Amino acid sequence: MKIKSANITRYDHLVSHDERINRNGHLPGVLWFTGLPGAGKSTLTKELESRLTDDGYYVTVVDNELIRRGVSSDLGYSHEDRTENIRRAGEVSALLARAGCLVLAGFISPYHSDRDEARKATGLGFHEVFLDADADVCEKRDINQLYEKARAGQIDDFTGVSAPYEKPLSPDLVLDTEALSVEDSIDQLVVYVGQNFKL
Amino acid sequence: MKIKSANITRYDHLVSHDERINRNGHLPGVLWFTGLPGAGKSTLTKELESRLTDDGYYVTVVDNELIRRGVSSDLGYSHEDRTENIRRAGEVSALLARAGCLVLAGFISPYHSDRDEARKATGLGFHEVFLDADADVCEKRDINQLYEKARAGQIDDFTGVSAPYEKPLSPDLVLDTEALSVEDSIDQLVVYVGQNFKL
Repeated sequence: MKIKSANITRYDHLVSHDERINRNGHLPGVLWFTGLPGAGKSTLTKELESRLTDDGYYVTVVDNELIRRGVSSDLGYSHEDRTENIRRAGEVSALLARAGCLVLAGFISPYHSDRDEARKATGLGFHEVFLDADADVCEKRDINQLYEKARAGQIDDFTGVSAPYEKPLSPDLVLDTEALSVEDSIDQLVVYVGQNFKL
Repeated sequence: MKIKSANITRYDHLVSHDERINRNGHLPGVLWFTGLPGAGKSTLTKELESRLTDDGYYVTVVDNELIRRGVSSDLGYSHEDRTENIRRAGEVSALLARAGCLVLAGFISPYHSDRDEARKATGLGFHEVFLDADADVCEKRDINQLYEKARAGQIDDFTGVSAPYEKPLSPDLVLDTEALSVEDSIDQLVVYVGQNFKL
């Protein structure tokens, strides 16, 4: 992508990173959930947001639905537009983390390069969480009948059916969502967040 | 703008709006600062962020520099691109507010229609703050030498020099930053925030 913005000076908040951390009681950052449609991204980010809010975290979900309805509503589903969608999702997540939030970002984000861009946008505090479930298992779950529509040719380039998913090479956390219950996955995530974001 | 996103279901957080408000001790929302270059947007949003953080608010600045470096880095300065930049800034502010933040958004945003779009994206809790200072006063301040560059023809369509600024018709708050000191402006803003966002 060509960067067209110009005459932009560096932005420095008067509020320091440390001030925000002390105020919130935890580090900010981004847990980036990647996996096939149906692997559990929405379920787990929602449940984790609820659990961590109860535990006093300043936490929010950034989900494909939220981004596609707003910041990316001008984008379609070409390869280029999908990459641009993930780029913007990464930048939005980075802004939220900058505001002190622990961001639970859930995006199929099938390509290494796109996930790496999101990591770069965030800087420190980016954790790639791979929800590992095979396409046939995800297809059986078929939340929102998306696999069904893809098989019927109603959705082009559907990850897991007609478009590839590049498995993360060195994710920070892997959850086998074929074997684990939602409760067990959440318990593992809460432990992970405590180890990595608590002061 | 044509909306191209499809197959998007509605997103519902498990964490309710009320839970976030009770956790944070204040309402979320967006203070949208509009005014000419040099009217005081950056100065006031930065100082206010610092002051409100001290007062215990979840607050963050969203500034043109931050948006242009990230979410909008693919955009240039055509009229269309500027409108798109403000649209995205509004959507990002809305997401931050959704996460419980009080957002201090500082954008020249010279057109009624663009500011109205930002208001629509946020829904409830959007407050337009007009920093009222004439172009000649702003030009004398000329932070970052932008007016100088615009006069020298180095920046096209520069608001206040070679592009129009549509004054807000019914802003929620007007600060006469020609007459008011920074301290007095901040005091007024702190009172306004207390009246409108405190529980």
